[in-house]
Amino acid sequence: MNHWKPVPLEQASRLLNHGPTVLVTSASGGRRNIMAAAWSMPVEFVPPRVSVVIDKKTFTKELVASGGVFGLCIPGAVLIDLTYAVGSVSGREVDKFRRYGIEARPGPVLGVPVLEAGCSAWMECRLIPEAHTEDAYDTCFAEVLSAAADSRIFQGGHWEWREDNRDLHTIHHLGAGLFVRAAEPIRARALPGNSA
Amino acid sequence: MNHWKPVPLEQASRLLNHGPTVLVTSASGGRRNIMAAAWSMPVEFVPPRVSVVIDKKTFTKELVASGGVFGLCIPGAVLIDLTYAVGSVSGREVDKFRRYGIEARPGPVLGVPVLEAGCSAWMECRLIPEAHTEDAYDTCFAEVLSAAADSRIFQGGHWEWREDNRDLHTIHHLGAGLFVRAAEPIRARALPGNSA
Repeated sequence: MNHWKPVPLEQASRLLNHGPTVLVTSASGGRRNIMAAAWSMPVEFVPPRVSVVIDKKTFTKELVASGGVFGLCIPGAVLIDLTYAVGSVSGREVDKFRRYGIEARPGPVLGVPVLEAGCSAWMECRLIPEAHTEDAYDTCFAEVLSAAADSRIFQGGHWEWREDNRDLHTIHHLGAGLFVRAAEPIRARALPGNSA
Repeated sequence: MNHWKPVPLEQASRLLNHGPTVLVTSASGGRRNIMAAAWSMPVEFVPPRVSVVIDKKTFTKELVASGGVFGLCIPGAVLIDLTYAVGSVSGREVDKFRRYGIEARPGPVLGVPVLEAGCSAWMECRLIPEAHTEDAYDTCFAEVLSAAADSRIFQGGHWEWREDNRDLHTIHHLGAGLFVRAAEPIRARALPGNSA
């Protein structure tokens, strides 16, 4: 059974709002790549825009610059080893999809590789070229043109953390292969001062 | 007992690496403010640089633009209600520090308000003015000039998630007052393909 459902673009920011580590996919001129990135965030709700730090020396940056597009896939906890692995080796040397047996298909709008098995969501992004910030801060801005999520954990615009979907819980890199799993939803209560 | 210890600047990026929601503090010309921000990230290790989305219409942006500095404080789970509260009301109308009884002291280098009780860490940041990205993406770049953390949860450059410090576990905003607590550390294992 396929649990994947399209995410309306006005809800795309919610996929990154809580700061998960992501997989950045890219493809251009017959080559493709995948890397991990801890540093990404939304920057606008509508149109949905994001920023992500992609080191200018990486193969991913080369493909993103030439293709003008990339994918952001959000790995679930079940993919922690893979996430760390693709963040530790360069795609210039090996095809990481083949090396690690990663199944990806072309996204529906931009054709960038998107991963579904083990991921909670993905986005297809079109680079908004910003030469200065890409150079000074390795920061790439982009607009999200399509998104989808596994409805077992994200549905109706909301994440649902449950014990039975823990393999899809987002992971957040602390450094050097140590991640923390986002695990316990907590709802804020209104403070007295706030209702005055 | 004071558990707060300075964080060496080359380790400052680790405070934000996993995408926690932060409190942005600001002060200029005798006025001060505090707001919540889900959208922030490191952009460089050394010198430590960060970016944070601050809507150009906010009072915080006004103070940051005039003062050229801001603080990023990382609230622990015990501050979830406060974090949501300060993200829901404008500091133009009220002094949120007074309204919510927030204790803050001037940071040691830049004098921006920093919170310690209930927070796991803070940073003092100097804005790097970037008119275009502030206008087009509400994205402010800054350099971290000082940082400190509660040694009960961050010590020797590493986060330590334990049951006895759960009040200080970072919180990650999903939207509309629902947060998820980063709770379970998981260490990635090397994949066979990775050692080849």
